[in-house]
Amino acid sequence: MRLTDNEENPQLQKPEPESLLATLQSPADLRQLSPEQLEQVCTELREFLIRNLAVNPGHFGSSMGAVEIIVALHYVFNTPRDRIVFDVGHQAYAHKVLTGRREAFARQRTKGGISGFPSPMESEYDSFVCGHAGNSISAALGMAIADMATPGDEDRHTVALIGDASIGNGLAFEGLNNAASNPNNLLIILNDNDMSIDNNVGALHGYLSELTTSAGYNKVRNKVYNQFRKHGIISDHGKGLLLRFNNSLKALISKHQNMFEGLDIRYFGPFDGNDVKKIVKVLNEIKDMKGPRILHLATRKGKGYPAAEANPSQWHAPGKFDPATGIRQSKKGNMLWQDVFGRSLVELASNNPSIQGITAAMTSGTSICMMQERFPERTFDVGISEGHAVTFAGGLAAAGKHPFVAIYSSFLQRAYDNIIHDVAIQGLPVTFCIDRAGVVGEDGVTHHGLYDLSYLRTIPNLLIGVPRTAARLRQLMSTAAKHQGPMAIRYPRGASDVAQLPDRQDTIEIGKGDLIFQSSPESPQARIALVGVGPILDNAVKAAEELATKGIGVDVYDLIWVKPLDEEILHQAATEYDGIITIEDGTLQGGLGSGVAEWIVDNGYASPIRRLGIPDRWMAHASVAELHKEAGLDKDSIVRSIAEFADTIKAPSNKLYRP
Amino acid sequence: MRLTDNEENPQLQKPEPESLLATLQSPADLRQLSPEQLEQVCTELREFLIRNLAVNPGHFGSSMGAVEIIVALHYVFNTPRDRIVFDVGHQAYAHKVLTGRREAFARQRTKGGISGFPSPMESEYDSFVCGHAGNSISAALGMAIADMATPGDEDRHTVALIGDASIGNGLAFEGLNNAASNPNNLLIILNDNDMSIDNNVGALHGYLSELTTSAGYNKVRNKVYNQFRKHGIISDHGKGLLLRFNNSLKALISKHQNMFEGLDIRYFGPFDGNDVKKIVKVLNEIKDMKGPRILHLATRKGKGYPAAEANPSQWHAPGKFDPATGIRQSKKGNMLWQDVFGRSLVELASNNPSIQGITAAMTSGTSICMMQERFPERTFDVGISEGHAVTFAGGLAAAGKHPFVAIYSSFLQRAYDNIIHDVAIQGLPVTFCIDRAGVVGEDGVTHHGLYDLSYLRTIPNLLIGVPRTAARLRQLMSTAAKHQGPMAIRYPRGASDVAQLPDRQDTIEIGKGDLIFQSSPESPQARIALVGVGPILDNAVKAAEELATKGIGVDVYDLIWVKPLDEEILHQAATEYDGIITIEDGTLQGGLGSGVAEWIVDNGYASPIRRLGIPDRWMAHASVAELHKEAGLDKDSIVRSIAEFADTIKAPSNKLYRP
Repeated sequence: MRLTDNEENPQLQKPEPESLLATLQSPADLRQLSPEQLEQVCTELREFLIRNLAVNPGHFGSSMGAVEIIVALHYVFNTPRDRIVFDVGHQAYAHKVLTGRREAFARQRTKGGISGFPSPMESEYDSFVCGHAGNSISAALGMAIADMATPGDEDRHTVALIGDASIGNGLAFEGLNNAASNPNNLLIILNDNDMSIDNNVGALHGYLSELTTSAGYNKVRNKVYNQFRKHGIISDHGKGLLLRFNNSLKALISKHQNMFEGLDIRYFGPFDGNDVKKIVKVLNEIKDMKGPRILHLATRKGKGYPAAEANPSQWHAPGKFDPATGIRQSKKGNMLWQDVFGRSLVELASNNPSIQGITAAMTSGTSICMMQERFPERTFDVGISEGHAVTFAGGLAAAGKHPFVAIYSSFLQRAYDNIIHDVAIQGLPVTFCIDRAGVVGEDGVTHHGLYDLSYLRTIPNLLIGVPRTAARLRQLMSTAAKHQGPMAIRYPRGASDVAQLPDRQDTIEIGKGDLIFQSSPESPQARIALVGVGPILDNAVKAAEELATKGIGVDVYDLIWVKPLDEEILHQAATEYDGIITIEDGTLQGGLGSGVAEWIVDNGYASPIRRLGIPDRWMAHASVAELHKEAGLDKDSIVRSIAEFADTIKAPSNKLYRP
Repeated sequence: MRLTDNEENPQLQKPEPESLLATLQSPADLRQLSPEQLEQVCTELREFLIRNLAVNPGHFGSSMGAVEIIVALHYVFNTPRDRIVFDVGHQAYAHKVLTGRREAFARQRTKGGISGFPSPMESEYDSFVCGHAGNSISAALGMAIADMATPGDEDRHTVALIGDASIGNGLAFEGLNNAASNPNNLLIILNDNDMSIDNNVGALHGYLSELTTSAGYNKVRNKVYNQFRKHGIISDHGKGLLLRFNNSLKALISKHQNMFEGLDIRYFGPFDGNDVKKIVKVLNEIKDMKGPRILHLATRKGKGYPAAEANPSQWHAPGKFDPATGIRQSKKGNMLWQDVFGRSLVELASNNPSIQGITAAMTSGTSICMMQERFPERTFDVGISEGHAVTFAGGLAAAGKHPFVAIYSSFLQRAYDNIIHDVAIQGLPVTFCIDRAGVVGEDGVTHHGLYDLSYLRTIPNLLIGVPRTAARLRQLMSTAAKHQGPMAIRYPRGASDVAQLPDRQDTIEIGKGDLIFQSSPESPQARIALVGVGPILDNAVKAAEELATKGIGVDVYDLIWVKPLDEEILHQAATEYDGIITIEDGTLQGGLGSGVAEWIVDNGYASPIRRLGIPDRWMAHASVAELHKEAGLDKDSIVRSIAEFADTIKAPSNKLYRP
């Protein structure tokens, strides 16, 4: 799409640096401006974001839509003493720019640079971690209640800024349901851009739209109100009567009613959330009111960049693009793992009408959109409701269907109990397709999928398969479709090993691994069995090739299954080798390597073992390759680890060999 | 309380067996009765429950309240082809009695007997697992949607039966929010007894009460409606207008509005849920309507037993009682673990104003009620909202407080992501006090707390302490209160080791364990280091005493900390003993024993290790002692395991010792 002569994009004609924004070192400077100057700040912020995100990609659409809200909040409230609690912080770029990170922004989401999400470890203006949706109300409520009980802090304000997709999450509802339980002055701002990453779903969404479109009810209010009074149906006395009356009218005119008032939260809105002066005015009016309040603001995703406004789903996180033309750089390379999943699911579903597809607001991210397009009646996007997605799948399975649930690894943590209680205890045939497993790169600490192997391995009767190749992912999916019980398959973000979809999609034997690299150096110094799962084994194979030239024989086994483990391979590893190396793209605490160690000791072997994986600490944002290197999972690090291990186990005085 | 001459308890005067109930072999028999006979069935069911639960304790109050609803459902619907999906199934006793388990009921919740909850593994009438609250809507929605897509099954009915406390859970909300997204004929019955185990909380609760008390709105409906029409404010055409009008009136009369209609679910009620003929009538009216519907029924917890009606919280699960007098058998014995926690928390809170207490509808179960009584403004019961409880605690901690969150182990699975994302990543000082850890006994498979050590051990920077004694629990709590980061403490259900609260409550060193039993048989056959955590170590000490007489020297170490492990003890165990035994009341997959195995191999030792704990399969209901025996954790089993282990490691041809 070519953008020409567009008055909404003045920055395209004026590439020179902004003048006003550059003078703002902190929100305190912003608060010195007149309300009239705020519009210029917003314009300059948008220019800044477009210039930056075109070359250093990030979350574009939400951040463009939230510019005015963020400027208004910092203008009206005394941040950082007053707190803004973001919800899914990828809308927060303008906040970062305004709070001392304008220059650092060019390196956001890169190794050593600032995070793509608000982070309390990074700035005192970032009040809470916000990578997973729906937590802002609960967290902000905690702060607001704490302030009321802390002498000297009673006047602090806390604002939760939540999107219309996040507010449909169960955690957000629990927060809303508790918001009025204890005295507090929490202000919730609903940033309603009418879509999450993909189209928004759920009844609440329809409800919010209704609220917005029915805002004209004020026009008839007086007329009807007077009719009521005239006929003695209501009188003027009684606390809150007018409010009730208004709600009543809304209910009459709109199909829906005001749910927030039903939860004892005062509701204001909807107002135009891209009108900064209006927001400032409203915020000033309601800022010092007591009790929990919700302010409903309607914004436009991608606001100020026509290409993004026209196609918000594509421009959620567009990658690099040409700011002048709006043309996104297409990525060359192999098929994405998610697309291998998506296309394979369509194939399986074509041959088996019991197969259903389920996701939780990740239709394009997991590529389950491919099934949605082909079999819309068998594909369910339940919105940001991971717990419901899994329990709903359990219900489908209990009624004879075979659901495939596609959710990112770190978000599946939300559904841990549902997997145990609503699927696994009953042995229901639900397949969990866990995308973004392992380190995910730029999204950082809240998004890495490092714990799935550990937390799933504890669940009885749950099979866990990990493909190393696209072909194997297809086989595991076929195997799962035939398995009459629960099974998890985890695979990473990014490109797979193939450019085109492999043909066959046969099943494989459960619990059987593969020897994928056999090393035969002459008279080797040591013979090592390397066992692992997933594409990280590619680095292991390269390391084994190099080690062969150094006289260390490393045979590489792809276990494929984390549960059940291939006991034949493990027996062989324990008896025919000098030592065992384990490797996985996941935490070392309780994961595959831990399972191998358990098996070895439980079976009475005393094999030396070295476990490679993600260490027991938080991993920040960086590229996947950088993170693997940091964790010692790149080829060179593996070579070093194994060489050192071989030396150790062959040393005559080694403590491994007790007298 | 003495009950005399009470007409509501005719069974007390007529101890002979019921006549009608005994003739009902299945719901098909029930459906042969006239509507008039159903009242007698309900009366006999109540007599049956009182007689049985007096001697074989269970969940009394909810089951007594739900008798009429259950009878009506089986009468109107064609179970098991039509499905009833219970939500927290301890209300389901009448259902068990009516569905072929009348005689088995005497042994419910005992080893080999039927479960205390509905269980699809037990009966075709039990459609889904329901030990954790809030899952019924999601599961039933899955079934209802599956039926619509299954030729021949379109006419099956699915009914979710959910309580007023459960419906405030986030999962239930996610289910409601999605209920209207796809075509289905789901019927949700809200069994509103106006309290969960303890008093109900949250705005939704107030909302439901309002709905109930404002039911008289019908009386003015016609008058107002005619006024509207007369003045041309509304006209009669337009689909759903009357419904909207009704909602509008409700909104005007009540402070609140109908949230369910806002979610596109048709609402009916409230009606008297203890009037079986009325329920049958209403069910017949709405049974074949299309689309999702909710029927709101008001019931009385403990209905039909005055003592229970008067004190529903005590009579939720009263234990054994005298049916004639209503006197509950008091339990003698040591202090409960939960009371050690409750009293210790009050002490800590007395000395430290930053300490807050939080639970999720487990105030009496966790004994956090003690803090609630003393410091009501610092104690928060957020209702059945485990996720919110943890994130809310994160918010309090971010604002300078130190929350202690008390939740049962199996329910904390609901908050796994919240622990990671909203507390641990930020290193916030939140203490998790995990009650009901390990096997819990009679509540069975959904309630055992077996996975916490495994799923928590994966989380960086989270400390995990496990007390063996009441004194140690107090020390761990003091230590947590001083620790500037997240920490978990897990302890079991039931009685601790003391009759009175130990005096001191000093702190202990993080990551330091204890030698608690030293064995010194003369020239022992083998010397074993037994390392473990928790009260299960008492069995280990007894086993060690017995083994000493057999010439096997077992020193018993209480590691106290699962994270960080006491590396000094482990080093000693690896170097000064012939082998290591680990023991824990939790799953063997990824738990303490797994952590010890990891440490041993990671540090290059080759110690023989045998791990004792809960095996990798579902554990049913039985007494705690029976379950420990089943898992090989009783004294005799430990003796056998260690003796066999000692033989193995001393055998000359042992595969442990490679050439």
